[in-house]
Amino acid sequence: MESLKNNLLLQALAGEEVPRPPVWMMRQAGRYLPDYRKIREKYSFFECTQKPEIATEITIQPVEQVGVDAAIIFSDILVVPQAMGVEVQMVENTGPVIPSPVRSEDDLKKLCIPDVEERLHYVFDAIALTKKTLDGRVPLIGFAGSPWTLFCYLVQGKSSNSYDKARTMLYSNPALSHQILEMLTKVTILYLKNQVKSGADCVQLFDSWGGLLGPEMFNSFSLKYNQEIIQALKDDCPVILFSKGAWYGLGAMSQSGAHALGLDWHIRPEVARTWAGDKMTLQGNLDPALLFSSGTDIKKEVRKMISAFGSQRYIVNLGHGILPNTPVDHARAFVNAVKEME
Amino acid sequence: MESLKNNLLLQALAGEEVPRPPVWMMRQAGRYLPDYRKIREKYSFFECTQKPEIATEITIQPVEQVGVDAAIIFSDILVVPQAMGVEVQMVENTGPVIPSPVRSEDDLKKLCIPDVEERLHYVFDAIALTKKTLDGRVPLIGFAGSPWTLFCYLVQGKSSNSYDKARTMLYSNPALSHQILEMLTKVTILYLKNQVKSGADCVQLFDSWGGLLGPEMFNSFSLKYNQEIIQALKDDCPVILFSKGAWYGLGAMSQSGAHALGLDWHIRPEVARTWAGDKMTLQGNLDPALLFSSGTDIKKEVRKMISAFGSQRYIVNLGHGILPNTPVDHARAFVNAVKEME
Repeated sequence: MESLKNNLLLQALAGEEVPRPPVWMMRQAGRYLPDYRKIREKYSFFECTQKPEIATEITIQPVEQVGVDAAIIFSDILVVPQAMGVEVQMVENTGPVIPSPVRSEDDLKKLCIPDVEERLHYVFDAIALTKKTLDGRVPLIGFAGSPWTLFCYLVQGKSSNSYDKARTMLYSNPALSHQILEMLTKVTILYLKNQVKSGADCVQLFDSWGGLLGPEMFNSFSLKYNQEIIQALKDDCPVILFSKGAWYGLGAMSQSGAHALGLDWHIRPEVARTWAGDKMTLQGNLDPALLFSSGTDIKKEVRKMISAFGSQRYIVNLGHGILPNTPVDHARAFVNAVKEME
Repeated sequence: MESLKNNLLLQALAGEEVPRPPVWMMRQAGRYLPDYRKIREKYSFFECTQKPEIATEITIQPVEQVGVDAAIIFSDILVVPQAMGVEVQMVENTGPVIPSPVRSEDDLKKLCIPDVEERLHYVFDAIALTKKTLDGRVPLIGFAGSPWTLFCYLVQGKSSNSYDKARTMLYSNPALSHQILEMLTKVTILYLKNQVKSGADCVQLFDSWGGLLGPEMFNSFSLKYNQEIIQALKDDCPVILFSKGAWYGLGAMSQSGAHALGLDWHIRPEVARTWAGDKMTLQGNLDPALLFSSGTDIKKEVRKMISAFGSQRYIVNLGHGILPNTPVDHARAFVNAVKEME
């Protein structure tokens, strides 16, 4: 690895001592930035992910404009099902739509294990170009959706409050569910390994819908597959696991081999520390809505949060993605409140 | 109160000893029942709530067809904002839509404190007619949405994954948020008192979006107002409080004066008992998706759940509303698994 000028994130992931915790924001490359919105006037969402020079520009925007300590490659978790042969549309103001969801043994035939290097080369190209353009300023985070979260979209066919079709399939056809999850796991491992080969310094697994499952179902249908991915990646790079809403699985997740666990804004820092154990690096967990309060309040809450988590084995982040209408100044206030600690 | 032939629910709410726990299901009067769907071919959703004889028929269907130990009046939480002057549309396959959401001081003028008896008389008529038609077979549950949950719809204007507009308003304009919540609280108290006067034996507060808030925000913007309602109702009838997803507030909720707390399917029974204390009646918490597994599995899981909660100070229920496509036979298997305990 070439030397990084700002290595805070990787140090925190390795459990090394840091002068202050690193800070980045989920969805930091995105809609709240006017320069991103300008690019989106010219290109569709998936075009932006598919053109390496555009993806690179979007990825680096928050590094230069907001001052975060890490870049995360601009892409989408649904490029994996796309590469497996599923049509995914990104509908403005609605989110992803899968016109032919996977709900039966017959539908399973739609899914293939692709040549990942070939089908997803544009992501790897974007990572390589971003890495080069960053020139060691900050680490680059790669990512993938967890198999369970991809399963939710594949089966439901669109965003949902409850993902009832996905959740009920686990009970009505557990064998088929496991088959789909196994395929997703296999492709995700290849996908993440190639991201690392192309230049990602660490990766995050977004298990956005982990918290829709009860404790036992979470272990069998979400954590089991995330753990397989983490184990397969352990010699490649550090892995951050973020199972949103799955507070009840924090103890189990701390045994998964992940280098850090992401937290949503519902859990108190002290509780998370107790459940995850002292050795685990934690990441989170400011309520993204809090960035709509005043700069003074943002600063106060960030300091309170850091003092509750402690400044070691900790990565400052939001508890979920930054909201689309967040004022850029407030995102900066969030980042600066951390940097002022030095 | 006239004597009830099946008084299990009220006994469990009073902490009295019962031969077996009572069982009912959230959304038990609704879409999974073919006879309900037949009625809906003739009448719109809100027509069904507004015609007392139709609301009564729908309310009693699960008592007669599934054998639950309580009826819950067929209505909707959004009749309260409707009565306060807000237009609410129920859009098939989309859910409620509020064409002019409340987002500013100016919008606040749209809201009034109505003459509840006059504006919501159809609910009270439906309760009185249902009570008469039930003829003491089982208790009748009244209900209302929590002020915070109504606020979510009022501000967001429609169903949402994140209710970001509602959540951010709490930070960007806390004073206005409290004003709206106070009005909703005032009307809800009048509404529930009238439900009891009309024949409801107990009431449930549905705080469906309580779990969207962090622990401190939950206390200030959700629990505070639910507590006011519970205190105002305490001489009228028992109150069940169900803040879905708000596991971190269970300790605080156990001090709210509520007679029972509802639980979603994410919390283990033993954990809930520890956090809520031995004196609290708990209600829940089977994953509604589990009703899509086999009858044998349903029976096994129900027994496991009852043995974990214990048969006293416990009301068997799902962890959220029964899902629309649930086979009626499986709903019966759920109810029968409880009844077989006698």
